[in-house]
Order: sequence, then C-alpha cells, then structure tokens
Amino acid sequence: MIIVLKPNITSRQETAVLKEIRKLGYRPHVIRGVERVVIGAIGDERTHHTLETLTTWPQVENVMPVQKRYKLVSREAHPSDSTVRVGLRVAIGGRQLHIMAGPCSVESEKQLLTTAHAVQRAGATLLRGGAFKPRTSPYEFQGLGEKGLKLLAKARAETGLPVITELLSETQAELVAEYADILQIGTRNAQNFQLLIAAAKTGRPVLLKRGLSMRIEEWLLAGEYILANENPNLLFCERGIRTFETYTRNTLDLAAVPIVKRESHCPVVVDPSQGAGRSDLVTALCKGAVAMGADALLIEVHPNPAEAWSDGAQQVTLAGFARLMEELRPLAAAVGKELPGS
Amino acid sequence: MIIVLKPNITSRQETAVLKEIRKLGYRPHVIRGVERVVIGAIGDERTHHTLETLTTWPQVENVMPVQKRYKLVSREAHPSDSTVRVGLRVAIGGRQLHIMAGPCSVESEKQLLTTAHAVQRAGATLLRGGAFKPRTSPYEFQGLGEKGLKLLAKARAETGLPVITELLSETQAELVAEYADILQIGTRNAQNFQLLIAAAKTGRPVLLKRGLSMRIEEWLLAGEYILANENPNLLFCERGIRTFETYTRNTLDLAAVPIVKRESHCPVVVDPSQGAGRSDLVTALCKGAVAMGADALLIEVHPNPAEAWSDGAQQVTLAGFARLMEELRPLAAAVGKELPGS
Amino acid sequence: MIIVLKPNITSRQETAVLKEIRKLGYRPHVIRGVERVVIGAIGDERTHHTLETLTTWPQVENVMPVQKRYKLVSREAHPSDSTVRVGLRVAIGGRQLHIMAGPCSVESEKQLLTTAHAVQRAGATLLRGGAFKPRTSPYEFQGLGEKGLKLLAKARAETGLPVITELLSETQAELVAEYADILQIGTRNAQNFQLLIAAAKTGRPVLLKRGLSMRIEEWLLAGEYILANENPNLLFCERGIRTFETYTRNTLDLAAVPIVKRESHCPVVVDPSQGAGRSDLVTALCKGAVAMGADALLIEVHPNPAEAWSDGAQQVTLAGFARLMEELRPLAAAVGKELPGS
Amino acid sequence: MIIVLKPNITSRQETAVLKEIRKLGYRPHVIRGVERVVIGAIGDERTHHTLETLTTWPQVENVMPVQKRYKLVSREAHPSDSTVRVGLRVAIGGRQLHIMAGPCSVESEKQLLTTAHAVQRAGATLLRGGAFKPRTSPYEFQGLGEKGLKLLAKARAETGLPVITELLSETQAELVAEYADILQIGTRNAQNFQLLIAAAKTGRPVLLKRGLSMRIEEWLLAGEYILANENPNLLFCERGIRTFETYTRNTLDLAAVPIVKRESHCPVVVDPSQGAGRSDLVTALCKGAVAMGADALLIEVHPNPAEAWSDGAQQVTLAGFARLMEELRPLAAAVGKELPGS
Repeated sequence: MIIVLKPNITSRQETAVLKEIRKLGYRPHVIRGVERVVIGAIGDERTHHTLETLTTWPQVENVMPVQKRYKLVSREAHPSDSTVRVGLRVAIGGRQLHIMAGPCSVESEKQLLTTAHAVQRAGATLLRGGAFKPRTSPYEFQGLGEKGLKLLAKARAETGLPVITELLSETQAELVAEYADILQIGTRNAQNFQLLIAAAKTGRPVLLKRGLSMRIEEWLLAGEYILANENPNLLFCERGIRTFETYTRNTLDLAAVPIVKRESHCPVVVDPSQGAGRSDLVTALCKGAVAMGADALLIEVHPNPAEAWSDGAQQVTLAGFARLMEELRPLAAAVGKELPGS
Repeated sequence: MIIVLKPNITSRQETAVLKEIRKLGYRPHVIRGVERVVIGAIGDERTHHTLETLTTWPQVENVMPVQKRYKLVSREAHPSDSTVRVGLRVAIGGRQLHIMAGPCSVESEKQLLTTAHAVQRAGATLLRGGAFKPRTSPYEFQGLGEKGLKLLAKARAETGLPVITELLSETQAELVAEYADILQIGTRNAQNFQLLIAAAKTGRPVLLKRGLSMRIEEWLLAGEYILANENPNLLFCERGIRTFETYTRNTLDLAAVPIVKRESHCPVVVDPSQGAGRSDLVTALCKGAVAMGADALLIEVHPNPAEAWSDGAQQVTLAGFARLMEELRPLAAAVGKELPGS
Repeated sequence: MIIVLKPNITSRQETAVLKEIRKLGYRPHVIRGVERVVIGAIGDERTHHTLETLTTWPQVENVMPVQKRYKLVSREAHPSDSTVRVGLRVAIGGRQLHIMAGPCSVESEKQLLTTAHAVQRAGATLLRGGAFKPRTSPYEFQGLGEKGLKLLAKARAETGLPVITELLSETQAELVAEYADILQIGTRNAQNFQLLIAAAKTGRPVLLKRGLSMRIEEWLLAGEYILANENPNLLFCERGIRTFETYTRNTLDLAAVPIVKRESHCPVVVDPSQGAGRSDLVTALCKGAVAMGADALLIEVHPNPAEAWSDGAQQVTLAGFARLMEELRPLAAAVGKELPGS
Repeated sequence: MIIVLKPNITSRQETAVLKEIRKLGYRPHVIRGVERVVIGAIGDERTHHTLETLTTWPQVENVMPVQKRYKLVSREAHPSDSTVRVGLRVAIGGRQLHIMAGPCSVESEKQLLTTAHAVQRAGATLLRGGAFKPRTSPYEFQGLGEKGLKLLAKARAETGLPVITELLSETQAELVAEYADILQIGTRNAQNFQLLIAAAKTGRPVLLKRGLSMRIEEWLLAGEYILANENPNLLFCERGIRTFETYTRNTLDLAAVPIVKRESHCPVVVDPSQGAGRSDLVTALCKGAVAMGADALLIEVHPNPAEAWSDGAQQVTLAGFARLMEELRPLAAAVGKELPGS
C-alpha cells in the first residue's frame, strides 16, 4: 500500500499514521517528496487489514493498493493457458475455436431439437439453451424449469453436443449439474457469491458472465471464488457492459478479451447476442471476437426469432447461423484457430 | 406497442407485419406518415407476447412499448403513499424521517452495543449491521454469520431499536428473518430474483437497494417481484450508481428520490455511505436526500472506522454521527419532516 | 510518482528504470515490498515529464501520480472561499444564494422581457438567456445571435439584472463580452481550451459547465485554464453527467457540489434544468442543490414551455418559478443562506 | 411523433393536446389502446417544431420521435458507400485498408522524419502527427504549432504520404488547411459546432472523432454539420467512449463500426491508440477493427515512447508497428481488404 499524506501536516499527525500502519501489521517506509510525504507500507495486502480505511483520517490524502487482489485466476499463479475439458471431445482454450449455439430459452422439444441438429450441422460444438430464465419482470416467461433440462439432455443424447445452461438458484445447483455439462452464471448473478460457491462445488465447469457494470478486476475476483472453492474449470464470458449508448442494448467490450487473457490463464468466451441485443450485429461482433483471440463464442439461434418466448430480437435464424459460420472460417484461419466442420 | 416500418418497403412486406401482429394477439392500426408507416398495436403488452421480436424482420425499423411494465409498485395501482410498519413504533413513509444507523459489519458485541446505544442517543430509530457480507474478493472478511445475527438481536433487546440486516442467500431467508425486522437486499443481488422471492415470502419488510447499473424502470420491476409475491412492505433504497467518476466510489442519483416517489407509492430510503464511499461526504449527501424527499436514511457508523473490518473509509464516527443528526434537524423541519429526539 | 515494477524482473531491468527516472529529472527511491519493488520518484510532477510513459516498458506494472494536477483553482493555493462580483450588487460565493433565471433561448423581445420581469419579481438576481445556441442537429434553431444579445442588454436596462449568456465561438468572445456580465461555457465546449482562453481574456466572469463525461479532476483542470489566463472570476456549474439512466436526460451529480467546494475555492452553481431535462424535477433538484451548499442556481423559465424554440421539456413556467422560489426559502434558511426578496 | 397520454385524463385534456398538435403544424391521428390513448402526429419532424415540449403538460406521459434526425450522412440519402479521396493516390472507403500512422505530437524534425520513413516502409499510407494539442492541463505541452505543421509538410515532401493533423481552433482553420490533407476534429471538440463548420468550409476532408460520451445518433448529427456545409468528404473515427472501466483509458466500441456503416455511407476509421490508452492492446484492437469492417486505422507510433512529450503510454515503437502490420495482413485478406506493401 502507498499512503499519501496531505501537505502541511504536523509531525505528530505523521507519527500517528506510522503507528497505525504498524498496528495493522505493515512496515512503513517514508519518502519525503517535493510537496507531500508518501509512505510505502510493506506487507501482504491480501492477508492484512486494508489501509484504505486510513482515508477517514484528516491528515491522509489518498491510499493506493500496489498488489493485485486476485491470485488463483492470475497468470502469475499459472503462466500457461488453462484448458477446460467438457465431455470427451471438447477442450476449450486450445487451438480449436468452439461455438456454443442454441436458443435463448428452451421452449419445446421440436424447437430445441430442430435447432440442435441445425447448429451441429453448421459447426457448433456445444448446445446452449435456457431452462431457468432470469427475467426483468415477474410477468415474463420464466423458463420451462426441469422440463427444459430434460429436453436439453435429450438433445445431447441425439446430437452428442455437450450442454451449457444457466444456473439461477443455489437450491438448484445439484439439479442443474445433473443435466448440464457447463453451468452458466448470468450477468445479473455475477456477484451473487453464494451462487458462485454453489456452482463451483458441483465440480462442473463454470462459465462466468461479466456483470453489467463490472470492472475487469471485479470480474477476475468473482472468478477467484470459483477457483478458491476448488473448481479449476472456469470460463470468463464477455457479454457487453452497460453504457450510455442506446443503439445497442449493451456495449461489447472486446478489449476485455486480450486483457483477461493477459491477466488470467482461463479461457475467454464472447457472447455477441447479449452484447448487441440485435441479431443484425451478431456476425460482425463474432468476427471481432475471433480476431481478438476469443476461445469460444456463445450464440443465440432460434428457428423463428419473431415468435421466440424471450429475447427474440437478438437471436439469429438457422440459415443465418449457417452463413455466419461460413463467414467466420477465413477469420479463424487468419488467427491460427480451427473451426469444426471445415 | 408502436411498430415503425422502414421507408420504401413493399405492400407485401407491410401485410406480413400486420399478419404477425394479429397472430401475436394484438389489433393493428396503421398510420401513414410523411416518410414512414407506423403501426399502433392495440392489446395489453403485459399479458401478450412482446412485439420487440419484430425488429429481426428486415422491414421493421423500430418497436416502441407504450405501457409501463410495472403494475403493483406503481402509483396508478395505489395512488396514495404506502407506509411500511416495522415493529410497534416505526412507520416508514409518513411525516417522520427515519434514520437507520450502525456499523457496516457486526464485528463484536462491544463494537455493536457501543454503536447501537450511541446512535440511539443521537436520534436513530433503527439499527443496521451486516452479519453476512458480500465481498468482492473471497479473501475478505465475510461476516460473523449467525453469531452476528444474535448480536443484533441482543442490541435490539437492549435498545428497542428494530434491526435491518442483509440477506445474501435464499437458503438463509428463514434464518435471517428470524432475527431481522427488515431484510436488506444488496446492490449486487438487486436482480437475483430467486433471492427477492425468498425474501418476499418471509413476510418481513424488504429494503431493495438499487443495482449498480440499474435503470429506474428495472429497479421498479425488481420491486414488483416483492409485491407480486404477496409482500406489500417494500422500501426502495438509492445507494449510488456506477459511472465514470472516480472521485467517489459511486454517483448518488438523488433525482431517483422524487422519481420513484412519483412512479411508485413505496417509501424511498437513501444510503449516503455507499453512495459516496467516503465519510467526509456523508453529511452533505444526507442533507440533499432529506431536502429531496427521502423517507429514511441508512448510515454507516463505527466507533473506530480506521480499524473497521469492512468499508472503513465510508463509516462515520460516533461523534460524527451525533453532529450529523444535529445538522439535519433544520433541514428536516424545512421540508415538513420530523426527526426523532428533537 | 510511484512506479510499481512487475514481480520477477531482473536487476538489469530494474536498473534501466532507475536510470530513466533520473534522466527524466526525478530522484528515485526504492522500496522492496513483499512481492514487488516500488519506486518513489521525487520531483515536481507538474513541471517534469510524466513518468506514466514508463508503462510501455515490459518491466513496469503501473505508474501512479501523487500530486494533484490543478494549482490555481485549488484550496491549497487559496484556502478561503472566493467571491465572484458581477456588476455592483451581485457577489456570488457569499451568504446570499443567487438565482440566475430566464429562457433557454432568447426568442423575442416580448418573451424575454415578460420572463425577465417575472423572474425578478419572484426573486431572481441574474437573467439568463441563450443568443448563440449549440444544437445537436444543424437543422435546429441556432439562436438569434447578436439580435439576442441586444435584447438581453435591453432586459438588463429595464430590470437591472446582470446577464449571463453562452459563448460558443472564439471569434465572438469580444462581441458577447460587450453585452454579457457573465460568459457561460457550455457542456459541449467544456474542454474546448481555445474557447476557455478566449473567454478568460475578455476579463468577464466565466461560468464553466461540467462536460457530459468529465471527471471532477478534469473539470478543475479546465477551470485552471481560466485562472492561468489571469482571470480569477470563475464559477463551476454542475449540470448533470451522462450515465446509462434514461428516465432523466442526465444524472445530476450533486455530490460534486461539496467536492468542488472542498477541492477549490471557486463558487459552485447548479443547473437543475439541464440536469434533469424535465421541468417536473426542477424543484426537487433545486432543493437538493441548496441543501448541499450550492452558491447559485441556473434555472430555465419560459412563459409557454410547450412552444419554446429549444429545450421546452425542461423549462418551468413563470408561475412555476414563483412557486419554486417560495419552496426554496425555508431550505435556504436551514443552511444559513439568504434568498433575495424574502 | 408519437404522443402517449396518461391514463384517466378528461376529454377536455385530450382535446387540448390535439389542438396544440395541429397548432404546431402536425396532423393528429388518435389510437385508443387498452389502457392509454396514443396519438400519431403526422408531419416532417425535421422541419417542424418538436412535440417533445408537450411532456411539460400534465396529461402527456411520453413523446417518441419516429423519424431519424440525420439526413445527408444517412444511407437513405446515399445508398452506396462514399469514398474520400486524399491527394492522388489515397481513396478511403474502398477495397484498400488505409493506415494513418505517426507520433501523437510532432516534437522535432528528427523524430517526425524517422517515424514517417519507418511507418511508410511498414505499409502506412498516411502520416499523422499533432501540431496543436488539446491538453487536459494548461501546464502540459501544447504542441509546436505552425512549426509542427511545417515539419509535417516537410515529411510529406520527403515521403509522399498525405498528412492528417488536428484542428483545434476556428481561427486556425485556414492555416491548418494550408498544410494538412485531412483535418482531424478531436473527441473534446466533437460537438464544437463552430469548429465543425469552419473545418467543413476549408474544403479539406474532415475526420470526426466520436466524443467521449456521444451516442451514435449524436455523432451522425455532428457529421451532418460537415455535409450540410457542403463538404462531402467526411470520415467518422471511433476512438473509444468513456465508461466505468479503469483498466483501459476508454472503451473502444467496435460495434460502432458496423452500425455507422449501416446507418451512413461515410467511411469509418478506428483509433486503437486512444481507444485503449495502452500500447500493449493496440495490435489486438487493430485486428478487431479490421475484422469488423473498418476502412482505415489511425495508429500512434513513436521512436521512443517512454520519452514522448504526450500520451507516451499508448504509442507503439517503430519495430512494434512493423510487426503489427505483418500481423494485420492475414486478417485484412480474410475480410477481403488489401493492405499496402503486401
């Protein structure tokens, strides 16, 4: 920690700060600058009391942490890339670019199976689909629940595609983990730490979406909850942040891809459907994500978006998805990635 | 719903839209404007399929909802102000201005009781204190848990102050409701709908903090989850939103006070401690909140903020709290509110 | 400056950093911490080359400035409150609360004079009105120009109210200064430094609105351009920042009032009309601003807002303004301020 | 315009709205919905008084525009892509991807010429360099001024590269246009409409950076100021918006590339240097920009970034730039673009 003192304080006030720093377990080191005194407090910031509380003292101008607060998710802890294995055939984080595709919500057997077969034919390697849906209004469709999970399992049995689906509730962690190959934590629950812990404990890989207004450091720290609960299989998923722009539903922060890959060893997934909230931007955003190093994409696909029970505006059609996959191939090749089915 | 068609589309494309609108249960009404055709779709937007999915069609430029999506929390549903009763002596939402004060985290019996007595003497009418703490990092103090709840109950027994404390987990709703008079839902859980439902079902009053990047409409809809689960005792709590400004931890959106009081009948609480993240701004923010019509304030108070186990930088001292209360009296009077102990 | 080195670098890499720090004119001071080496670079950050460029070096993790970048606007430079005198009778920054009121745009003699007399009767002490208008679209009304300035001068002659109006263009600084008592710099020009310099050089008091997405530090630095060009008469005006919220046009950051008053000696004005973009919130925002210590308010008033040529949605009527002034009186008194006409 | 009335208003209140709509030149068309009355007001929104002022009336809930406000920059006005010609050899907006590279500030003849030759060798087709610099603090280096312009002209004479440089002041439009091939309008001046008009009138192509907190619609409308002043040579430049994220200086909104290319016919440039504020992210952001359809890139390059006089942290070295160009080649090819020198 670096503690910056205000100019023109008494030596008594300075001594009081030094005493408190020692009391809180750090070793102070004073630097007398041109205008201000700066104190370097030596000690492990992650295991000691934070010194930021010193800002309540009138003689302290500012306290600045020096260490990074995340540990297990960091590159320093694990310099090489991690790979997350899902089932026997899928390993996210390597040379292969993975595509997770499927409807926003599971609506019916027909809708799901039609979509699953179509996305598989086009090159998807995992099936997505929501059974429990977090909805802004209590009057909106909340998902088919366990029935939806069973349909996902059926689609997996038919296609062989592993399944990713959202976990909404601590009390359903076991249930969802029984059916799903990857547990998705949604943006509204990205700092629901109890849910993160419950998800981690199932042992299933966890895909952690970035919260709507989460700084990257906070996102990495939320991921730290997964690894600290002894589950190494973590995927970070950028899905757009909230800004003032209204043309798109969210602002997809593609810079987060290289940043998270630099700070962390975990694979990075991009969700362009949520990122834009508009199906007509999905292809362009997928291209950007692949060019910038994403390990996988999460794409919403629906046989008839206009009649989708949730988020129809951002789902692409089956034909649209097939075209999208073709457009991605040269880009994947240009960055040294393989796309299935080529 | 209002559907705006693109200019220069064919009559066949227009007919297709009209057909789909009817299929989804609305009655279309065409207006031919100077450049564009606009369709008013008549029907209850809350019970019908949304037409926003039509934006995936190439001939549709835009779809705009007309109705408000919230119902039970709205002024239209309940034109007069609601009052939330807590215990026998407290009614939030009337002429009296209520002050909820206490430490960020319950740390020890001594810390809590000292604070409880001090804030009561100065005029607080409820005691706040965290037993379960949501922390950005898994390595930070997570609260005393049930032990903390027991200390809160003890402080209530000694002072008579009703207790407000945060609920973090669905699985603890019954436990926390046993000890607490008001359940607080924190900003990171403001759209954890499962938690909202669990809180509502305990029957205890619920204080719902605004999410870090929640639009007011979304906040009202989250509140709708409480009322729709048959709990009428809802308090909205503004606590700052996330913006680009870095001088303060959050930007307290005080305009939210008159807005929520206009749109909804529920009482509005302001949390200036979280709002600023700095104790030296708490007094000014309290004054602004009272002047703008807040029904209650939620203030963090600690006997020794520099050694607080969480969020020390934003907690005021016992003496600071007493001064703050004195400074608030003339303002409360100026807006026709009573402050206890005067 | 504080330079944080990456963990596990070679001593050669460390030496290179020390050498560069010395080359750029600072004296380095090494602190060996638990995980990282931190270097305090002693020297005046305002007169030396910034060391933030060192972040381009692979061995440097982070560079943190220690000094504040603003000087003349700071409390350190001028510990007591500044007062800005306008004409013979107005001094902004003292016990008296000043009200600047008038139409968004000057539209006609009748509109302006009617408004000027009405706001004066209700207690306004300055007249506002736009003659040159910055408009988002080139097809919108751009103001009456010099004709508008002449009407403002006429209204001043009739009422005795000093006039504040916006300066849009460097080339008009002399012209506008001839008619206006205070030059307003609008939010879109808050970092148009050439305009700031031109305004400063006229010698007229300058009201500097906060830019839509300006951090407080940047706003203070923009103000520094006025004082550094030898014009001490600077007013900071908070008028709302841009956030994700859509209910209001902007989010009025009332915490900026106590913050700027702490960091700077210059008076602070609040513009609740722009801040909300809705006339129905103006009264509540005025109350909050006064309670939090604003020295003056800037309020848009129009005889018939529905037919205003610009920003009608946020202008209050003449009767509404008179009511607002009555509602403000007890609040002003509660914070020890005087409101004219009482 | 669509006017939504409040529920439960009197027929007299409705009639008053209809009368005012007619008075303001529109033809009203009433739709009686389930809960509310909605009025479609038929008329050209760009030439008539806005009806948004009606929101000041108590019986009006909301007013929603239907038309787009931009005209000349829109695809509707000009369905095919525009091309901006610069000198004899450069045409931005076609199959060729253009690279504008050079130092943030022109510092000396040696620095500029070294950089110009190096970027040209690596494939740049235009030279960038700031002679007039807008700086947050008045104490920072403000650019070499006309001397800098002369050095740019000299570098052009030596290399043949057309020159882009920033215009800061209306009074310097002629001067800068004398030396520059493209006039750059910076992010802080993006809504300095007087400067936009002055730039347009020089007849030089104008590169308009997006303002820090500009919605895309506002950016397009600012561009409209250029075309409406009879200068058809407009380039839009995305350079990052301001958000809550602090890891990067700005958040580069790459979705703006396909959006502006859909809404407008003008070419789109991306500035990854400003977008990230960190040189180590520039390569990844360039790749994303190219993949998503950018017509040109604007990249800051410096022989020795650690000693740059401005924005050193975001400038890449000469060798770094050469590597970057090599990494871009396969991506450009994958989206059907040509990169010079291949």
